[in-house]
Amino acid sequence: MSASDHRPAAQIPGGAVFPHRHLTGIAGLEPHQILFLLDEAEQWVEANRDRARVDKRLAGLTQINAFFENSTRTLLSFEIAGKRLGADVVNMHAAQSSVKKGETLIDTAVTLNAMRADVIVIRHSSSGAVQLIADKVDCPVLNAGDGWHEHPTQALLDALTIRRRRGSIAGQRVVICGDILHSRVARSNMLSLTALAAEVRVVAPSTLMPAAIERMGVTPFTSFDKALDGADVVMMLRLQNERMNGAYIPSTREYHELYGLTPERLERARPDALVMHPGPMNRGIEITSSVADHPERSAITEQVEMGVAVRMACLDVLTRRERGIEGWA
Amino acid sequence: MSASDHRPAAQIPGGAVFPHRHLTGIAGLEPHQILFLLDEAEQWVEANRDRARVDKRLAGLTQINAFFENSTRTLLSFEIAGKRLGADVVNMHAAQSSVKKGETLIDTAVTLNAMRADVIVIRHSSSGAVQLIADKVDCPVLNAGDGWHEHPTQALLDALTIRRRRGSIAGQRVVICGDILHSRVARSNMLSLTALAAEVRVVAPSTLMPAAIERMGVTPFTSFDKALDGADVVMMLRLQNERMNGAYIPSTREYHELYGLTPERLERARPDALVMHPGPMNRGIEITSSVADHPERSAITEQVEMGVAVRMACLDVLTRRERGIEGWA
Amino acid sequence: MSASDHRPAAQIPGGAVFPHRHLTGIAGLEPHQILFLLDEAEQWVEANRDRARVDKRLAGLTQINAFFENSTRTLLSFEIAGKRLGADVVNMHAAQSSVKKGETLIDTAVTLNAMRADVIVIRHSSSGAVQLIADKVDCPVLNAGDGWHEHPTQALLDALTIRRRRGSIAGQRVVICGDILHSRVARSNMLSLTALAAEVRVVAPSTLMPAAIERMGVTPFTSFDKALDGADVVMMLRLQNERMNGAYIPSTREYHELYGLTPERLERARPDALVMHPGPMNRGIEITSSVADHPERSAITEQVEMGVAVRMACLDVLTRRERGIEGWA
Repeated sequence: MSASDHRPAAQIPGGAVFPHRHLTGIAGLEPHQILFLLDEAEQWVEANRDRARVDKRLAGLTQINAFFENSTRTLLSFEIAGKRLGADVVNMHAAQSSVKKGETLIDTAVTLNAMRADVIVIRHSSSGAVQLIADKVDCPVLNAGDGWHEHPTQALLDALTIRRRRGSIAGQRVVICGDILHSRVARSNMLSLTALAAEVRVVAPSTLMPAAIERMGVTPFTSFDKALDGADVVMMLRLQNERMNGAYIPSTREYHELYGLTPERLERARPDALVMHPGPMNRGIEITSSVADHPERSAITEQVEMGVAVRMACLDVLTRRERGIEGWA
Repeated sequence: MSASDHRPAAQIPGGAVFPHRHLTGIAGLEPHQILFLLDEAEQWVEANRDRARVDKRLAGLTQINAFFENSTRTLLSFEIAGKRLGADVVNMHAAQSSVKKGETLIDTAVTLNAMRADVIVIRHSSSGAVQLIADKVDCPVLNAGDGWHEHPTQALLDALTIRRRRGSIAGQRVVICGDILHSRVARSNMLSLTALAAEVRVVAPSTLMPAAIERMGVTPFTSFDKALDGADVVMMLRLQNERMNGAYIPSTREYHELYGLTPERLERARPDALVMHPGPMNRGIEITSSVADHPERSAITEQVEMGVAVRMACLDVLTRRERGIEGWA
Repeated sequence: MSASDHRPAAQIPGGAVFPHRHLTGIAGLEPHQILFLLDEAEQWVEANRDRARVDKRLAGLTQINAFFENSTRTLLSFEIAGKRLGADVVNMHAAQSSVKKGETLIDTAVTLNAMRADVIVIRHSSSGAVQLIADKVDCPVLNAGDGWHEHPTQALLDALTIRRRRGSIAGQRVVICGDILHSRVARSNMLSLTALAAEVRVVAPSTLMPAAIERMGVTPFTSFDKALDGADVVMMLRLQNERMNGAYIPSTREYHELYGLTPERLERARPDALVMHPGPMNRGIEITSSVADHPERSAITEQVEMGVAVRMACLDVLTRRERGIEGWA
C-alpha cells in the first residue's frame, strides 16, 4: 500500500506510525515500526518484478550516497533503489578520495547538507559515524553500515525474506553463525529478530563471541552442531579477509571444519530450514556451494532482491516529511 | 525507423528478424541481423546530432554497466547511450572493487539479476566471461569486450562507419593491421566484415598472428606494404602497453617502422582509402598524427560518434521483448 | 528571473549580454557579465532551498564532467547542479583511468565531442588545459579548475556569497591569505573582485607570493596582522599538503603562527568581517575551528550552497544557444 492511497481505516497519520527522522539503526525502532517498513517494502517487490515500473515519487530530490568504505553491492542496491524512485542519485566515493585525508567527517556532512541533499546514505568504517552526521544535517540520513555498530537495511531485508519464506518471524528459531563480535549485520539482526519475537541463537568461536551477549536476548553457542538443532533459519556471516589468518582463528580450513555450513551439518536443522547469507560469500569457507545454491533451501538470491525493495521503502518513508505527504508533514 | 513505427510492408515481426536475447558476439549473427542493427543505429546518429533529442523509451528500466576491466571510453559510450534513452544507468566499477577479490563471477551475475536489472553491459578480461553471465541471468546481456574473444559493438560501429563513408561494405578491401592475436576488436571485425562480404586482409608480425587465421575467411600478411595494395579501408589496432616491450615485438620504434601507418605507406592504398582506429591511439607508434588527423581520410572521430548510436540501437533492440513492443514480446 | 520569462523592459537579447561560448576563466569577462551570472544564480539559491524543485530545462542534454584531477567536492557540486536541471550527467574519472596514460588531451576532447556532449566540465592539473579543450569542441566548456590558472565558478560563488552577506562587492576590503602563488582560487578571485571594484589585499609568506602581484590591481602584504586592518572579508586559502613540509614554509606550526586565522587575529578586522574558505579546511593550520564555525562571522557553509547555485546558472546560461532560447540562438 502506498502512502498516497486513502486509508480511511487507519486514522493514525503516517508520521505517528513512523516518527523517526533518520534510520541509523534498528535500535530505537518499535516492533510495529519495523513491520511497517516491511509492509511498505512489499509493494516494491512487486513493482521491481514488473518491468513496466515507473514510480518517480522522489523526482526532484537529491540522494547522496556517501560511502567512506567500499561496498559494491550495497552501493549498487541503494543507487538502484533511488533511481527507480526518480531521485537524482549522486555517489561520493569517499573511500578513494581526498575526503579521506584531512577533512573532518563533520565538515563533509556540513558540505553535503549545504548542497541541499534531500537524503544522505552513509557507509563508514567507524561505529557511530552515521549518527554523528545525522546530528549535523537537515535531511534524513540512512545508515548503510557503520563499523561494528549497525547495518539496519540488511536486517530489514533479512526480516522481509524470513517473513515471506516462513510466513512469520515470531517463533522462528534463527541461528546466526560467524564473526558475531565484529559483525554489524549480526548486531542489527539480533536487534530486529528479537524485537519481532524470533528465538535467536548466535554461534562463534569464543574469540569471535562478544562478552555478555545474552544481554541482547540471544543464546550463545560455541558448537554450531548443537545450535542447529531444530533451527528454522540458518544465517551465515561472511568471514572477513582480515580475520582469516591471525589472532582470531587458526586457519580458514579449521574454521570451515567447525563453523562452515555443509550439507551434513544442515541436516541437523529442520528439514525445511532456510539458508541465508548477506554476501559476498566465501564459498568453501563459511558455506559450501551445494548449500548456498540449494534450490529450495537457499534464500540468498532473494535476500538481494529484498534489499532493493527495502531500500526503496526506507527512501520513500524517510522523505515523506520533506515531500509534504499528508499525515507526514 | 523505430520499432514503434507501423510497418505494414514488413509483415515479419521484429522478434523474428532479430531473435537473439543477448549480444555476446558477432558470431551467431546472420548477415541480415547485423544489417538490421546498423539500420536501427542510423536513426540515433540523427537524433544525437539534433540537440533537442528526447526519446526516453527505456524510462523505468535499469541498465547495469558491470566493468570488470577498466575502459573509460567504452563505459562512457554505453552510459551516454543508456541515459539518452532514459534508462536508469548504474555503473559497477568492479575493476577497483571488492568484487574482484573473492566473489565468483557467477555470484556477481546472480546478484545483478536479483536486483532486477533490465539489461547488463559487461566488460571482462576473460574470454567467455560474458557468455557465462548471460547463461545465468533473466535479462539481455551486452558484451562490451571480453578477453581476446569479442567486442561486438566495436565491430558494429566500424561497419556502420564504413557503410556510411564508402556506401557499402560488400566488396570493400579492408586491411586490419596490428596485434591480431590478442585483439577482440580484430576478431569481431573479421566476423562481421566477412559476413557482410568485404574482402578482409590481416597484417601482423608473425608473433602476433594467430595460427590458421585463413579459417576466418581472411588473408594474412606479414608485410603491411603488400597488404595495403588497393585497400579501401585501413583499420589500425592499438598496440597494448603490455605488448610494447617483451617477447612479441623488439621495440615500439621497430614496430612503427614496419607496421605504423605513415603518410607514405598510406599512398599504397587507394587514393580515397579510409583510415580507422578504435582508440585510444598511440600516436607515433601504430599511427602517425598526420594520418590520424587527416581531414578527408580519417574516420576515427566518426567511429566514436557511431559508437554511441550503435549502442543505443543495441540497448533498444535487446530490451524490446521486456518492454512488450508489438512483434517482439 | 529565468531565461524563458518575457522581458519586455530589457530589449537587449541575452546573447548580447553574455556572448561567451565557454567559461574558461574570469579573465575576459566584463564586470556586468560577472554580475549577470550572479543575478542568474539567485533564482537557483531559492529553488534549491525549496525541496519541491523540479526544473528540468536541460532535459535531453548530455553533461560530461571530465575530471583529470581528483576533487570530490567540486565534482559533487557540478553533478548535483546538472542533475537538478535535468541533464544526463556522466562523470569521466580520468584521474584514475587509462586516459591518463598515453592518450593526448586533445584526443580525449575530440572523443567527448564526437559523443555529442552538450556541455563539458573540466578539471585538470595543467594550466591552459581547459582552453586547449575548448578550442577543439563544438559545445560549451566550463573550467572547474586548471593548474594554477583559474577556477572561475569558485570566484563566482565567493562573489555571490559576499554580495548576499555584505550587500555589495564594490568598496569591500577583501583580504586573501595563503598560498597566493599556486592558487587558482586566489587568481580567479583577484580578477573578479577587482573587476567588481572591491579593494583586494593579498597576504602570503614571500616564498608563496608571486612577483609583481601589484599588476593584478591588488596590494601585497607579508604581515597578515597589518593586512587585516579594516577588513570586511577575510578569505583563507587551503594550504596544500604538498606545500606543508619543504621549500615553501618551515612547518605547518610556524605557518599557523603567522598566517593562521585565529580569533585574536580576526579582531584586527572589522567587527562584522566575514570569514571565508573554499574548503576543504585544514583546521588548526590555516584556520582555527572557533573561527571556521563562528555562527555569525563564518560564511563557509554558505559558500558551498552558493556553489551549486552558481554552477546551475553557468550550465543554464552557457547552453542557451544550444537549446535555442530566444535571444540566445
